[in-house]
Amino acid sequence: MQILGKVLRKFREELGISQEKLAAMTGLHRTYVGSVERGERNPSFQSINCLLGSLSKSWSDLGNALDIEIKK
Amino acid sequence: MQILGKVLRKFREELGISQEKLAAMTGLHRTYVGSVERGERNPSFQSINCLLGSLSKSWSDLGNALDIEIKK
Repeated sequence: MQILGKVLRKFREELGISQEKLAAMTGLHRTYVGSVERGERNPSFQSINCLLGSLSKSWSDLGNALDIEIKK
Repeated sequence: MQILGKVLRKFREELGISQEKLAAMTGLHRTYVGSVERGERNPSFQSINCLLGSLSKSWSDLGNALDIEIKK
């Protein structure tokens, strides 16, 4: 969950948008987005899918980024 | 969720193991594994991670397979 949060935060920062903006785009709550990025939540497939859509990232982008972080 | 289920079922069938066997390997319930494969469940990041580990698949493998199915 720490690694997922780190990758999702990196994707968001690359886009240059705030947690508030991402939350508004996804319809998720800002505090929820923050807790996912801090690795405090275990988000569902649909929540991750929703975040990826708003971040303009594919599941391959996520998978590749997770594997790179896991190997570190 | 339908696509996730389809991909996870494909991974399991490639390994030639039953839902029962996969359930025993992961510690998840057999009926839970079945419902995920039928797209009836919205599994969490940790549940998916657990299934991938037992299926000897990486997050990249999952991401690539999901994107292929999404594009179909």
